Amino acid sequence: MVENLIYLAPAGAILALAFALYFAKSVKRYDEGTEEMKTIASAIREGARAYLRRQYSTVAIFFVGMFILLYVFVFLGYLNVFVPWAFITGGGFSGLAGFLGMSVATYTAGRTTNAARTSLNSALRVAFAGGSVMGLAVVGLGLLDLSVWFLLLDWFYAELPEIERMQMITSTMLLFGMGASAMGLFARVGGGIYTKGADVGADLVGKIEAGIPEDDPRNPATIADNVGDNVGDIAGMGADLYESYVGSIIATAALAVAAGFGMEGIIVPLAMAAVGVVASLIGMAFVRTKEDAVQSELLKALRKGTFISAGLIALVSWVIIVAALGWEHIGLYFAVLFGLVGGLAIGLSTEYFTSHQYKQTRNVAESAITGHATVIIRGFSVGMFSIAPFTLIIVGTILGSYAAAGGIGDFNMGVYGVGLGAVGLLATLGITLATDAYGPIADNAGGIAEMTSQEPIVRERTDALDALGNTTAATGKGFCIGSAGLTALALIVAYSEQIYIIAEDLGMELVLDLSIINVPTLIGLMLGAMLPFVFSSMTLTAVGRTAQMVVEEVRRQFRDITGLLEGTAKPDYSTCVDICAKAALKEMLLPAAVAILSPIIVGLLLGVEGVLGLLMGALLAGFMLAVMMANAGGSWDNAKKYVEEGNLGGKNSDAHKATITGDTVGDPFKDTSGPALDILIKLMSMVSLVFASFIMQNTLMM
Amino acid sequence: MVENLIYLAPAGAILALAFALYFAKSVKRYDEGTEEMKTIASAIREGARAYLRRQYSTVAIFFVGMFILLYVFVFLGYLNVFVPWAFITGGGFSGLAGFLGMSVATYTAGRTTNAARTSLNSALRVAFAGGSVMGLAVVGLGLLDLSVWFLLLDWFYAELPEIERMQMITSTMLLFGMGASAMGLFARVGGGIYTKGADVGADLVGKIEAGIPEDDPRNPATIADNVGDNVGDIAGMGADLYESYVGSIIATAALAVAAGFGMEGIIVPLAMAAVGVVASLIGMAFVRTKEDAVQSELLKALRKGTFISAGLIALVSWVIIVAALGWEHIGLYFAVLFGLVGGLAIGLSTEYFTSHQYKQTRNVAESAITGHATVIIRGFSVGMFSIAPFTLIIVGTILGSYAAAGGIGDFNMGVYGVGLGAVGLLATLGITLATDAYGPIADNAGGIAEMTSQEPIVRERTDALDALGNTTAATGKGFCIGSAGLTALALIVAYSEQIYIIAEDLGMELVLDLSIINVPTLIGLMLGAMLPFVFSSMTLTAVGRTAQMVVEEVRRQFRDITGLLEGTAKPDYSTCVDICAKAALKEMLLPAAVAILSPIIVGLLLGVEGVLGLLMGALLAGFMLAVMMANAGGSWDNAKKYVEEGNLGGKNSDAHKATITGDTVGDPFKDTSGPALDILIKLMSMVSLVFASFIMQNTLMM
Repeated sequence: MVENLIYLAPAGAILALAFALYFAKSVKRYDEGTEEMKTIASAIREGARAYLRRQYSTVAIFFVGMFILLYVFVFLGYLNVFVPWAFITGGGFSGLAGFLGMSVATYTAGRTTNAARTSLNSALRVAFAGGSVMGLAVVGLGLLDLSVWFLLLDWFYAELPEIERMQMITSTMLLFGMGASAMGLFARVGGGIYTKGADVGADLVGKIEAGIPEDDPRNPATIADNVGDNVGDIAGMGADLYESYVGSIIATAALAVAAGFGMEGIIVPLAMAAVGVVASLIGMAFVRTKEDAVQSELLKALRKGTFISAGLIALVSWVIIVAALGWEHIGLYFAVLFGLVGGLAIGLSTEYFTSHQYKQTRNVAESAITGHATVIIRGFSVGMFSIAPFTLIIVGTILGSYAAAGGIGDFNMGVYGVGLGAVGLLATLGITLATDAYGPIADNAGGIAEMTSQEPIVRERTDALDALGNTTAATGKGFCIGSAGLTALALIVAYSEQIYIIAEDLGMELVLDLSIINVPTLIGLMLGAMLPFVFSSMTLTAVGRTAQMVVEEVRRQFRDITGLLEGTAKPDYSTCVDICAKAALKEMLLPAAVAILSPIIVGLLLGVEGVLGLLMGALLAGFMLAVMMANAGGSWDNAKKYVEEGNLGGKNSDAHKATITGDTVGDPFKDTSGPALDILIKLMSMVSLVFASFIMQNTLMM
Repeated sequence: MVENLIYLAPAGAILALAFALYFAKSVKRYDEGTEEMKTIASAIREGARAYLRRQYSTVAIFFVGMFILLYVFVFLGYLNVFVPWAFITGGGFSGLAGFLGMSVATYTAGRTTNAARTSLNSALRVAFAGGSVMGLAVVGLGLLDLSVWFLLLDWFYAELPEIERMQMITSTMLLFGMGASAMGLFARVGGGIYTKGADVGADLVGKIEAGIPEDDPRNPATIADNVGDNVGDIAGMGADLYESYVGSIIATAALAVAAGFGMEGIIVPLAMAAVGVVASLIGMAFVRTKEDAVQSELLKALRKGTFISAGLIALVSWVIIVAALGWEHIGLYFAVLFGLVGGLAIGLSTEYFTSHQYKQTRNVAESAITGHATVIIRGFSVGMFSIAPFTLIIVGTILGSYAAAGGIGDFNMGVYGVGLGAVGLLATLGITLATDAYGPIADNAGGIAEMTSQEPIVRERTDALDALGNTTAATGKGFCIGSAGLTALALIVAYSEQIYIIAEDLGMELVLDLSIINVPTLIGLMLGAMLPFVFSSMTLTAVGRTAQMVVEEVRRQFRDITGLLEGTAKPDYSTCVDICAKAALKEMLLPAAVAILSPIIVGLLLGVEGVLGLLMGALLAGFMLAVMMANAGGSWDNAKKYVEEGNLGGKNSDAHKATITGDTVGDPFKDTSGPALDILIKLMSMVSLVFASFIMQNTLMM
């Protein structure tokens, strides 16, 4: 009977996809606005879809290559025959979720601008409906991929006794995450380089050199900038969270088996995810506000939806855990609660550091009075300091989930609890991601309003939506990092357990020494802690190079197209779109190679102990660095907004210029390099898992 | 007979101190120059000495408090009776070395300016003689402290059999480093906040607002700025390296006993340090150049001295190791060589990333064309990328020393090898520190030349000396970080060995699980990796606040003192000196409390496994962050110099302004926050060692 709870997962998946379709259709029913608005919205849409198509074509080559390589490994006996196929479905579904979510977002932006001509509330509802498609596509496709594979494997291994069957299924499914991780990395890094290359490039020439406002239609890079919001902040973020979602569920399933559970232990994370879909849908229904709402009421409306979802999940998880595992495992329910609360605490902590309603970001703004350098120093120091509450929240979540699950007497039960904490944190993903994806849609809507010279009231309304979007985007980033940290940790522990299962299959005698002073582990830790910095350096440099190319092209157009700055001639938007696309695709390859090859090379040289050190080192440094970059970036962004609202001299004052410098530095921090670290640490763990058997049989150190 | 080699250590100490006195006297024989030069030099000297006196008075309160606390612990049976006294001598000698070295430096700067009126070579010789006093005082007093205590303890425990006696001596001496560490932290943090608070403050109003040159006598903060060079870059750096020097020797001595050696194993690091004194003195004799030398020849002269010293140490270490340990341990000789080579490789790597003769810093300079933000982004990305070669060099040194010592079959022998590698790296300290301390002296000499309006040729010569000083300072920082990393690692391993010795004494059954996935260790790792970021945030904020106070005071003087900017009235230098001193003393307390309390609190909550995780996490993140901050800062500094040499538009161009922003951001990175991390990771290890017995008996986790 309990076994039937597994069907909650495909049911939840189908429900999510059905509502995604419903929201997509409902968005299309809204009016697209004037011809001019239609033209610009469609230019952005075309640019974004064209980029994504090109990105997927490039990535397809990688996927075909990997598929062949994985098949070779299947023939050599290092991998199970399902892995190459699951690799393709994981990557394919992740890509599909990104494409669907982003496409709908591009349909939504223009309609949001048009709705803003009526009222703030209607604009919010259009934008939020568009964002919901992204959220529901991610959870729907992720859950579909997982439940189909689970049922398929369960049928395939039906003759095995339950415990063995579950071990077989989870060992196999653990290897499935690599497809989604790889797609996530390309989406995050490629999209991140695109969006910030275009943004920084557009700002450097437009705002600073030519003195024209953001999103001014005379700026040849303005369409590329808006395209970037879609490919980076929507498609990239979706792929990142798709990975966390899938990764945390399968890692938890594997940890359930290690903790001694049968099918019921695997059902729990899947069923919780399914409940999360329903809870998200109910929460979404509550996101509405009065027609004459002000900005703070908008935020309340979004928050209400999230809190309602979280509350529902908290209630229903109790039932699931009692039904599936019995009253004696009620501690695991509290493990879930720690995850849920941790997720909310991260959101509040992010808001404290990045919103200009609080002291931290106001200090950054005030330091602008003494110039560019002090803004930078202060923003850094805020970003670095914000690491403290973040780390304490994650440590509290880990300790709480571990202890509640009974980890003090039973390590395996404790880490299963930590896994459930991660699943709990991600259970609200449907609505959280909708809230996040709403941000770039509002940003685009503002761009379209600017480019089509709408009445001031329209701009004011889209600006209000956009400002709110900055807050939800910052909160979303905290959520991405927190979930990535917990997921990576669950994957690392699951990996260390898998090693023994593989060793047993191979008939190897194995005792891992994972002591921090064991030399291979120590060297792994050092190399691992180095990687996030090197990786960030690469992505920062890539943004710089791309922005440089955009700057040169925009300068060329300002020089060569007569009448452009006067508004009598049209810029050539498509060259900038093209430059960004080419650069992003080229620049994403080297960081991806580093992420994929480093665990394999370290494994061959230093063995599994070295790999585990590497993963932990990368997790430690990557987590800290990602938090620092996200919060410093968010704080700089809002410090600029604070000055633009008329404080400290207001727009065009020297203080404003200094905060623009801060914002420009923060852009690649918070939207390229920082987020790319989330996926780096997860992808490295996934690669390690897939190549574990190969490494164990070929390393120099065993 | 071999035992007599121990007397090399006190002999080396006395030799070093004798030559320090000789160089100090030789500096005083040079002409002090004009009355005006004397006045300014003495104002700087008085400011610096006054600050150091106040710093030491503040620190004295802490030392008295700690002394009492340690004595309480002695009575409670947690500590040996020698520890409180050794705590005082370590701190006292470190402070004395800083005071002596800095005092002589302040006598040297004016004389260097005066010598620059004659020739570049004579200015170099004066400045280098002044710097040598710092180098020799540090190694002399450090070696004296160690050898006196060793001989005292050897006499005290004379009745014990050798192995037990050595274990007793090294266990006791391991606890001695805390005094030097604590003094080092206060010197680094207090001095670092002072120097950069004054520097940033002076630049923000002087260069940027008032448009007057650096070191202009009209700037009321200019004396404070020059005082800062002395208290931060000379006294602070000396105390930092004093700690590495002493810490690496005692950790290696303890590791020798764990590796199964008797007295001969302890003699090796002490004798090598003594040989380093002689080698440094010989190397110093080679630092001279032609009367009409150009800048590149100056660098060659300094390099020649260092290479000759390193070569001599490489030769004589062979003899020491064969004499003390026999041919069968010749592998340990190669461990020393790995350390020596690692030290030189770090120097070259730093130069590649920070000198504007190479691509990296030129790229930073070129990014100034597109404005402030791109300089910042590019400098960061250079700093982050430079972590890769640094980490690989340290990893290579660890692996090489470990393997050469025979660590593959014998862990304890391997880590003794790593300890000897650290000692090898630091054996050239006498001359390396002389080369480093020379930098701020040259900087001050340039300041005095500017303030006394010398002929252009004098400025050119002091500028040449100063530019060279920037290179040696950057190299010195790399050396500090590398040595701190290896020393902290040796301390961590020594700590983990001590735990078993303490447990045995207490009759406790103990098996440490230091696995990266053991929960207390994991939580320790996370908290440890968090601390360097939080610590850096505190020191950055402290610099910002101090600079802000300086800015306000300078603005006040520009406003209130009529005729100041016209050069008809004198500024009130002493208020700025006073503001910086007060702020530095106040701001250094919180970071120090974090460094000292965190291992104790984590120990009480999470036990020894948590502490070891904490130390390793702090080492990993601290090392990476320190390298990033030092090299990004160095690169920004030299990018500015590159533009000032007439490239990319030269002085007063927009590109120049952008590089000034970079340099201002880099100042607290490279001279306050980054260097403070070196001492943070060592002090945390030392505190953990001292409180180990207390923690083991009072933790919640055992």
